Amino acid sequence: MEGIIATPEFQVSLLLFAALGGYLLASRINQSAVVGIILVGLLIGPSVLGLVSYNEFVRGLAHLGAVVLLFVIGFEFKLKDIVRPAYAFIALIGVIVPWVGGYATAVWAGMDFSTGLFVGTALTATSIAITANVLQEMNKLQTDAAKAIIGAAVIDDVLSLIALAITGDVVAGAFHPSVIFFILLKVIIFILVAGAVGIFIVSRFLVKLDNTPFVAKYPEFIFIFAMTFAFLYAMIAEIVGLSAIVGAFIAGISFERLELRKSLDVKEGAEFLKIIFAAIFFVSLGVVADFKALTLDILPFLVVLTIVAIVTKVVGCAIPARMAGICRKDSLIIGFGMAPRGEVAMIVALIGLEQEYIGQAVFVAIIVMSLLTTLITPIIYRNWFFKDEYCEPSPEI
Amino acid sequence: MEGIIATPEFQVSLLLFAALGGYLLASRINQSAVVGIILVGLLIGPSVLGLVSYNEFVRGLAHLGAVVLLFVIGFEFKLKDIVRPAYAFIALIGVIVPWVGGYATAVWAGMDFSTGLFVGTALTATSIAITANVLQEMNKLQTDAAKAIIGAAVIDDVLSLIALAITGDVVAGAFHPSVIFFILLKVIIFILVAGAVGIFIVSRFLVKLDNTPFVAKYPEFIFIFAMTFAFLYAMIAEIVGLSAIVGAFIAGISFERLELRKSLDVKEGAEFLKIIFAAIFFVSLGVVADFKALTLDILPFLVVLTIVAIVTKVVGCAIPARMAGICRKDSLIIGFGMAPRGEVAMIVALIGLEQEYIGQAVFVAIIVMSLLTTLITPIIYRNWFFKDEYCEPSPEI
Repeated sequence: MEGIIATPEFQVSLLLFAALGGYLLASRINQSAVVGIILVGLLIGPSVLGLVSYNEFVRGLAHLGAVVLLFVIGFEFKLKDIVRPAYAFIALIGVIVPWVGGYATAVWAGMDFSTGLFVGTALTATSIAITANVLQEMNKLQTDAAKAIIGAAVIDDVLSLIALAITGDVVAGAFHPSVIFFILLKVIIFILVAGAVGIFIVSRFLVKLDNTPFVAKYPEFIFIFAMTFAFLYAMIAEIVGLSAIVGAFIAGISFERLELRKSLDVKEGAEFLKIIFAAIFFVSLGVVADFKALTLDILPFLVVLTIVAIVTKVVGCAIPARMAGICRKDSLIIGFGMAPRGEVAMIVALIGLEQEYIGQAVFVAIIVMSLLTTLITPIIYRNWFFKDEYCEPSPEI
Repeated sequence: MEGIIATPEFQVSLLLFAALGGYLLASRINQSAVVGIILVGLLIGPSVLGLVSYNEFVRGLAHLGAVVLLFVIGFEFKLKDIVRPAYAFIALIGVIVPWVGGYATAVWAGMDFSTGLFVGTALTATSIAITANVLQEMNKLQTDAAKAIIGAAVIDDVLSLIALAITGDVVAGAFHPSVIFFILLKVIIFILVAGAVGIFIVSRFLVKLDNTPFVAKYPEFIFIFAMTFAFLYAMIAEIVGLSAIVGAFIAGISFERLELRKSLDVKEGAEFLKIIFAAIFFVSLGVVADFKALTLDILPFLVVLTIVAIVTKVVGCAIPARMAGICRKDSLIIGFGMAPRGEVAMIVALIGLEQEYIGQAVFVAIIVMSLLTTLITPIIYRNWFFKDEYCEPSPEI
């Protein structure tokens, strides 16, 4: 049986089986499917049953899931929807407040300067995958709040990257302000060039290709092309230093208006892929967090860190949103929408562990904190924000 | 850059990119897409450019590809279409002739008894994935020849399994005829029970589930369920000792008549998954074969082995097919359709290498032979069999 557990067939069937269980659980406790799936992931992972570990293959599938998810989310956005000064303002304050909060929490827990700086950095990142999926599930992706969340999250990803670079340099005792400049430069070039190439070249090329005899012969060609494009952009984003999912999202945006006539429907196909792979991704979020590694020593730190993580992001995003003229309820929706740290903080924690900025205990605390922040948004959205009617635009707008 | 090459995003985008290149190549040389994709796989793999290696992740994705492919192929078959005595007869002769042929080739090349037995075993298995995909591509899955090929290939898989067990036992000096009996027993029980559960329980359950408010709320649930079911059956087939793809195929057959009204269309979704994953699977067939490992010493053996592999399978299947009353052309179509060894022989070769039945040179020869047999069927189908009209039923039928 040992040999069977390691087979891809076993792992995928177990991950999907867990996802199905997640749906049933979610329906029973009347929560979002995402919450149910993550909780079942926790159950089959090392925390409880230990049936699946976060090995190379599961990690790879989870990556694919996040990429496909954000690619599909991208279809519903235009670039101009998400590139706005107000969103940059929300993102900036929403990165600084958690960074300071995380640093303060670590210092309060008796940690040194560089650990504190790193814990702060882990709190800066926003994982847009969960919020975006919940908004899509609730059919709320076209609201102003959703656009602000997505826009701010993309910028947030850039800012977190800068925070990570600064932290690394400061800890190594070699910080130069020029670092910020170069990161900003390459990221802005990437987003502009990738967006322009996607929208004006690739998308139009596919529409032309759709009318050729070649595609009439291979109607699946453009679908494979589109998925290749998504992964290619995801990869380039990683090379630039951004999350892969930002690249996938820009690839999705490129196809916002894509209309094909002779080929298979790219959006429909990607949606089907997303269903399977996002489910695997959410299960894996539960699998990666190992509650068993928690010790009593680290528990107070974990509790405070989680509260600080949520409060600093909610406050740090809702206040600038309100200042930008967004109504009170939408500002809170934005604040909680930015709160999940998800896989992004987990990746940051892994870097910290590997480069010995943080120890095993802090690593586990960040992982579990990240999971908990991830669970809160779907629960709050479902039970509170989207229960009654949408808020009136405030007089300021 | 080293770090990027190892990311799932890089590997998937490269594999899909290779698949796209495969389509272009296939169109240029006027061959089946499968041939083009495998050849481009060879190009990016260790044989030429060395951009992708057959690592755990790629291997895992390739497995998923084969499972999804056969699951989708299964939708077009009924169990009674493929369970026929004539097909068992074709399969049996089509296993014995290559086994003897492979043994004779190895002995001719100066190898010992146990190596010869093992080389023969590697020639027994049929990889149905390639032939089935080519038949689907050509819209010929509903022909009598296609049904015979699929039916015989499933039985062939059982017989190859028995051949492998016999070889292992004989080499270890502990052969008992009861082994055959137990393998046959568990395989027959698996196919009957899995088929019955799939067709009479799971499929009907899903139709009922389709009418519940639960599924109205989560229209993607049944799609995830169906994919879970496919991987579950694939896994059980592996536990029983069969190829995973036989399990996936039985899962697909179970859904042959599935009609859903409120849920997302399972067949459509699985078809989209198949497009991406089968492409990855075919690329990986090229990646796994490393021509560089070939030495001049082994070349004569490889050439003879490949010719023997093709001739013994064509003759060993076409003659019993003709004896069973199938027309001449269909008999040849069946013979060539059974010729690809694909990933099945590669897996057998890997077992042989790990258990030290064969050395590295013979291992490489089997891998490359397997690849070459895989290329021949699409080429012959496309350029010869399906160029002119389908053959008349022979007077015997």
